[in-house]
Amino acid sequence: MAEEKKIPYKIYLEESEMPQKWYNVRADMKNKPAPLLNPGTHQPMTAEELGGVFCEDLVAQELDNENQYIDIPQEIRDFYKMYRPAPLVRAYCLEEKLQTPAKIYYKFEGNNTSGSHKLNSAIAQAYYAKKQGLKGVTTETGAGQWGTALSMACSYLDLDCKVFMVKVSYEQKPFRREVMRVYGASVTPSPSMETEIGKKINAEHPGTTGSLGCAISEAVEVAVKNPGYRYVLGSVLNQVLLHQSIIGLETKAALDKYDIKPDIIIGCAGGGSNLGGLIAPFMGEKLRGEADYRIIAVEPASCPSFTRGKYAYDFCDTGMVCPLAKMYTLGSDFIPSANHAGGLRYHGMSPVLSQLYDDGLMEAVSVEQTKVFEAAEQFARVEGILPAPESSHAIRVAIDEALKCKETGEEKTIVFGLTGTGYFDMVAYEKFHDGKMDDYIPTDEELAEYAAKLPKVD
Amino acid sequence: MAEEKKIPYKIYLEESEMPQKWYNVRADMKNKPAPLLNPGTHQPMTAEELGGVFCEDLVAQELDNENQYIDIPQEIRDFYKMYRPAPLVRAYCLEEKLQTPAKIYYKFEGNNTSGSHKLNSAIAQAYYAKKQGLKGVTTETGAGQWGTALSMACSYLDLDCKVFMVKVSYEQKPFRREVMRVYGASVTPSPSMETEIGKKINAEHPGTTGSLGCAISEAVEVAVKNPGYRYVLGSVLNQVLLHQSIIGLETKAALDKYDIKPDIIIGCAGGGSNLGGLIAPFMGEKLRGEADYRIIAVEPASCPSFTRGKYAYDFCDTGMVCPLAKMYTLGSDFIPSANHAGGLRYHGMSPVLSQLYDDGLMEAVSVEQTKVFEAAEQFARVEGILPAPESSHAIRVAIDEALKCKETGEEKTIVFGLTGTGYFDMVAYEKFHDGKMDDYIPTDEELAEYAAKLPKVD
Repeated sequence: MAEEKKIPYKIYLEESEMPQKWYNVRADMKNKPAPLLNPGTHQPMTAEELGGVFCEDLVAQELDNENQYIDIPQEIRDFYKMYRPAPLVRAYCLEEKLQTPAKIYYKFEGNNTSGSHKLNSAIAQAYYAKKQGLKGVTTETGAGQWGTALSMACSYLDLDCKVFMVKVSYEQKPFRREVMRVYGASVTPSPSMETEIGKKINAEHPGTTGSLGCAISEAVEVAVKNPGYRYVLGSVLNQVLLHQSIIGLETKAALDKYDIKPDIIIGCAGGGSNLGGLIAPFMGEKLRGEADYRIIAVEPASCPSFTRGKYAYDFCDTGMVCPLAKMYTLGSDFIPSANHAGGLRYHGMSPVLSQLYDDGLMEAVSVEQTKVFEAAEQFARVEGILPAPESSHAIRVAIDEALKCKETGEEKTIVFGLTGTGYFDMVAYEKFHDGKMDDYIPTDEELAEYAAKLPKVD
Repeated sequence: MAEEKKIPYKIYLEESEMPQKWYNVRADMKNKPAPLLNPGTHQPMTAEELGGVFCEDLVAQELDNENQYIDIPQEIRDFYKMYRPAPLVRAYCLEEKLQTPAKIYYKFEGNNTSGSHKLNSAIAQAYYAKKQGLKGVTTETGAGQWGTALSMACSYLDLDCKVFMVKVSYEQKPFRREVMRVYGASVTPSPSMETEIGKKINAEHPGTTGSLGCAISEAVEVAVKNPGYRYVLGSVLNQVLLHQSIIGLETKAALDKYDIKPDIIIGCAGGGSNLGGLIAPFMGEKLRGEADYRIIAVEPASCPSFTRGKYAYDFCDTGMVCPLAKMYTLGSDFIPSANHAGGLRYHGMSPVLSQLYDDGLMEAVSVEQTKVFEAAEQFARVEGILPAPESSHAIRVAIDEALKCKETGEEKTIVFGLTGTGYFDMVAYEKFHDGKMDDYIPTDEELAEYAAKLPKVD
């Protein structure tokens, strides 16, 4: 116990200890993630084809299943210094409150203005766009974390940033839109009348409040049609997981510094960007047979792609202009009920994580949103930080695992990813306090209906 | 220059380097701040009289002009560990953007859920209330930073927390109210019908949207009338400046660690809690003749207590139930125009800072809010952090001083306090972007009218 006391509340790496390379987990995977397919021909997308949509260095990263480590350019490392290292926090107060023998750590990614880990990949994607001499980038955003992060990165690099924001969020969540404006981005509610696909969707569904899949289609269309522009995406893609490996690498370095070996690693999973980044180096050890960990993906019961989806090729967007990805998916038309406030609303899942899950290398659980907000509030009251609803999915399961340890008396070490803060989610917290939040869970029949519409790929 | 490169972007103190005592600048002041007076008798308030309103240990701190250092109780230091040390950041990107030879540092206090430095004193005041065996505390809040901070501290210590929130903020800024609810506080719009003074103000001014001075009166009344409750305040008082000295002590320790000697220290000033804390140890050196620094208080042109107020005894609240304090004041009825979005709206100023300013030991400047938001946006775009409007007053003057260095070629070292984040101020940013923000400056006639109503004290 004497040794244990030396572990500070927050472990910060020194600048000299910061990772200088991203880790590419695909290099260590025996079963590689399935390739992206051309939506027309169903043939694997070539670098050339992808280059019409994505920046060229990012295409190379997207297709790279071989290189274990990839250098983080100095310019990106300089930017990282502005808000990294993120602290690895020992949740002493939560442990005390739960009266658990478990040791709980969380990697807190919310200490930057975008409020989440999204900035880690935003700066990388913006950097490569700048390096290629592009004028700007386009993207979509739902609640706005990714759009905010990209706006910050583009502002720093003096790059044009065009964001399609799901209309319902644009109207109901004006504050994140305003943060994007602080950083000089142009923000358009989607579906808009600025794109062919937007016009089509508006015509077919008058008064629609939009969806992420539709906003993606609009952003891709604008990128493809405007010289000097490319499309960037905040999750799902292999390149994003690569950039987000900074989370796991820092976490591992901080743990190693104090000879701490985690038993369980927990992350929330929407498209998989945080979870994939957090677990990367640990999964690498597992794949190489050097260590074993329980790795748990947590998803909302309202959007259960891992736990109730199909592992199949599917469209990434509504307009079906994007490549097909093989992933755990609920179907590209699936949209969780509007009363789901807890984020993580994407129908699919990172192909890398999908393959790892299919290979039995990680677990997944789904949780109901009222239970998630209960955990969020409990966490906030003892640990101080007001967590984002998304992050609180991981808190829920970390608490559940710690309570199991209380029953069994096991002193397990639990690490979870606290991806961000909930300052822009107070409407959801208000619903929760006022007892107006309920738990939507799609029926088997609903899910079967969406699954039946999956594209047929041989 | 080689030496300089060793200075990291962010200087974090180790846990072992954290201050263990607060510094009490009054001990080194030749001219002590004037005592608080009983509003009825105009005699100095005794400890016994103050004890009816404030916790007993805090009364002792309030009256202590002698002890240079006061131990920070272990329980408070444990809480500080949850969100401190706050980083001292070298603003490399801002320097680069401004092309200034000046070296700019900022002490960032926004990395906690209350979003500002207010938590430093909130936990101290809550701790002493708990130590005294009280049931709870009452307070007022305007935009909500202080109320949020106090809610967090009370939640941590399991203490009841009753917040009177200025009605206009309660209605227009529901999100901070909601954060307080996350932390279990009860939040009442002020003026309410729960207090005598609230009823009186509602009767005299039907439909009033309240003021800070009125909310103070209500909170004091509830504390005095309910056994087991005391009133706590987030600024102005000597005890608050004492607690906030943690900001300056950490800043100085971080600078000393790299042998950096600041030339100019800049802080925003509303009631003086941040500025008084930031400058404390530097002012101490100045008072003891050990070093010299330029110290600049920055206030809004719309509420210019230092630069255009009177140094006189005045009421701290509208209801005139609080002690009289000698301070730079605009008069207790003064309320800045509603179109002032930039915070720092209190009519008075810390008696300690007032005395130091009157003794010529520091400077003060006032700035217009559109210039403040320009600086805020410029800062956000290069340094990443979205600053609170209050903090941005200091940014404005730091940039102005850095630009003077550019003209003269001087390599001055500038340190400023970045007190918090602006996540709950997006309506103000929106006004700024939409060109709907203007600069209210009170006329000499208006100020003279309020000044004429100052109480007569011999």
